[in-house]
Amino acid sequence: MQNNRRFLLARRPVGTPVPEDFHLVQEEIPAPPPGGFVIRNHFASLDPAQRGWMDDAPSYMPPIPLGQPVRATTVGVVYASDNPDFRPGQWVMGMNALEDYSVSAPGGFTMPIDVSTVDSPSRYLSAMGAVGLTGYFGLLEVAKPQPGETLLVSGAAGAVGSVVGQIGKIAGLRTVGIAGGAEKCRRLIEDYGFDAAIDYKGKTVEALAAEIRTVIPDGANIIFENVGGDVMDAELLNLARKARIVLCGLISEYNAPEKIGIRNLWQVLAQEATVYGYLIMDFAPRFAEAGAVMAEWMAQGRLRVDEDLQHGLENTYDAFMRLFTGANTGKLVLQIA
Amino acid sequence: MQNNRRFLLARRPVGTPVPEDFHLVQEEIPAPPPGGFVIRNHFASLDPAQRGWMDDAPSYMPPIPLGQPVRATTVGVVYASDNPDFRPGQWVMGMNALEDYSVSAPGGFTMPIDVSTVDSPSRYLSAMGAVGLTGYFGLLEVAKPQPGETLLVSGAAGAVGSVVGQIGKIAGLRTVGIAGGAEKCRRLIEDYGFDAAIDYKGKTVEALAAEIRTVIPDGANIIFENVGGDVMDAELLNLARKARIVLCGLISEYNAPEKIGIRNLWQVLAQEATVYGYLIMDFAPRFAEAGAVMAEWMAQGRLRVDEDLQHGLENTYDAFMRLFTGANTGKLVLQIA
Repeated sequence: MQNNRRFLLARRPVGTPVPEDFHLVQEEIPAPPPGGFVIRNHFASLDPAQRGWMDDAPSYMPPIPLGQPVRATTVGVVYASDNPDFRPGQWVMGMNALEDYSVSAPGGFTMPIDVSTVDSPSRYLSAMGAVGLTGYFGLLEVAKPQPGETLLVSGAAGAVGSVVGQIGKIAGLRTVGIAGGAEKCRRLIEDYGFDAAIDYKGKTVEALAAEIRTVIPDGANIIFENVGGDVMDAELLNLARKARIVLCGLISEYNAPEKIGIRNLWQVLAQEATVYGYLIMDFAPRFAEAGAVMAEWMAQGRLRVDEDLQHGLENTYDAFMRLFTGANTGKLVLQIA
Repeated sequence: MQNNRRFLLARRPVGTPVPEDFHLVQEEIPAPPPGGFVIRNHFASLDPAQRGWMDDAPSYMPPIPLGQPVRATTVGVVYASDNPDFRPGQWVMGMNALEDYSVSAPGGFTMPIDVSTVDSPSRYLSAMGAVGLTGYFGLLEVAKPQPGETLLVSGAAGAVGSVVGQIGKIAGLRTVGIAGGAEKCRRLIEDYGFDAAIDYKGKTVEALAAEIRTVIPDGANIIFENVGGDVMDAELLNLARKARIVLCGLISEYNAPEKIGIRNLWQVLAQEATVYGYLIMDFAPRFAEAGAVMAEWMAQGRLRVDEDLQHGLENTYDAFMRLFTGANTGKLVLQIA
C-alpha cells in the first residue's frame, strides 16, 4: 500500500520557488511509533513563513531538510495510536507537514482540539490558529494600543492584516490599511471596516509616502508590518513620535534573491520608534484564552476571518504560490482530505 | 565692528557635503535680547547628527534653515546679558550654532556648567556631553544589560562607541568592537579594553558576518549600532534570541544620496529582537546624575574619553568631514576661541 502522498522539498529555492523545487511522492502509511500516533491530515496551513524555512539560513526553526516534506501546521484526526491520550478519531492540530499522514512522536506539540464549537475544523488554522492569534497578540500585547491612536497595517487584505484591522477597531483605533489594487482596497473598507484604504500598486516610495501623509498627517502610532521593502519604507516616513512597529512579516522579501531591504531605518531613530521582532510562540500558554475571545467576536459578528480554501495535495505548489502573487483572499488553507 | 564669524548653510548638501554648501560670513556681534544673553562660544561639538539636520526631511529637529548657521551644541562664556541668572563670565552649554557669538533667548535650553571639576570645558561636549551620556543611557537604560551578556558595538573606535565599550566592561559584559582598520582595532583592545576587535574594511557582508560568528558563535545579546548599512547587515546575521539593538546612529547612511539600507531586517523577526530608536533627550532630567558617574569613572581611570580637538571656525568644513572619512579619533570638537 502506497497512499501517503508527501510534498517533499527537493532542493532549496532560489528566489521564487519553481515546481522543480518540490517532489510529490507516495509512500506507505506509517505505523505509530511507541508512545506516539499517526494523524490523518485534513487541512494544512500555507504560510509565508514556510518560504523562509526552505532556505538554509538562521531562523527560529531549523531549515526544512532536503528530501523531507514541507513543514506545515495541520489539522487532522488521529488515525492510529500507541498513546492512550490520543485515541483514533480525536481531532488534533500540530506542526506536521504537507502530507496525507503525519507521525507524532511522544512529547510532540500536537494538541487535541474541540471542533464542535466551530463551523469548520479549518478555523483552527485561521481565526483560532497562528493567523488570528498573531493578529491578536501582536496588536494587543506587543503594540499595546491606546484608544484614539492611529494604526497603519500593511498587507491589510491578507489573513493577518484583515484580522489586525478589525481588532484595531474593537480596540478603538483609527485604522488605515495598505493593500494592492482597488478590489482589495474595497474589501478593506466594506469587509473589514478599515477607516481608510491605500493602494500601493504602481507607486514609488515617495508617492506612497505622500499618499499616506494625506490620510494620516500626524503619522502612525502603530505600524503592523506584514510586507517590508518599499511599502515599509513609505510607512517609515510617516511615523508618529515613539511609534511602535510590530514586525510580523516581510512578504515582499521572502522570494527576493537580492533582498531590497529598507532604506528609511533612520526614521526609527529620528522618531524614537521601536521595532519589535515578533513571533507568536511566546504566547502559546494563552492560545486557548485568546481563541475563546476570537470565537466570541466572530459569534457577535464583530470579526470576520476569510479562508481561501484550496484543494488537494497535488495542487500544493499552485496553492502555495497564491501567497506571493497576491491571489489569495483570506487565510490560505489546503484541504487534504 | 564685524567680528562674529558664522558658518552658514548655503544650500542643502546632496550626499557628501562639499565646501560650496557652506559660507563663512562676518557679522556684528549681536546684542542681548530682552531677558536673554549673548554667549562667546569657545568649543563646538561636531556630530554626525548635524548632517541630518542639513536635509529637508522629517526628523526630531527641524531642518537647519538655509542662510542660517549650522546648529551645534557649544560651550562658552556669557558675554553680555539681560538676564540676572546668566551673568557675564558664567560658563554655559547649550544648543547654539557654529559661530563666534550666539544669542540665547529667554526660556532657551542653555544651562550653566561648572568647569572647575573638569580638565577642560570641552569635557561637557565629550564625556559629560551628548556623546558620553548617549553611551551611558543607551547601554544602561535602553539595552538594560545583564552581566555576562555579549555586547557588539559598531563604530567602536568612535566617540560614542569607545564609551559604550568601556561602560560595557564596567557592567560586566563581554565586549566586541567593530572598527575600520588595524590601527583602530588595536586601540579598541589597548585603549578601550574591548575583549575582541573586528576590522570591517574590505569585507563583504557575508565575510564580516562569518568573522563575527567565529568571535561570538552564540550571537550578540546587545548591539549598539552607530554605523548601519553593510556593517549592520552583518551584525544582524549574528543576533542571539531576543537581542536588543540600540539604534544610536547610522553614519554610513548620512552622506549616501541613495541609502543602501539594510537587507537583513528579517533576522530581527526571526530572532525576536527589538530595535530601539534612541535619542538622548528623554534622559535630560538625569544628565547631572549621569555626568557625575562618568566623572567618577574617569577619575578612577576606568573610563577614557578621547577628544579630537580641531581649531578655528575657518577650518569647520575640513574638521566636520573628519567624521565621515573616519579620520577622527575620539570626540570631534572644534575650538572656536
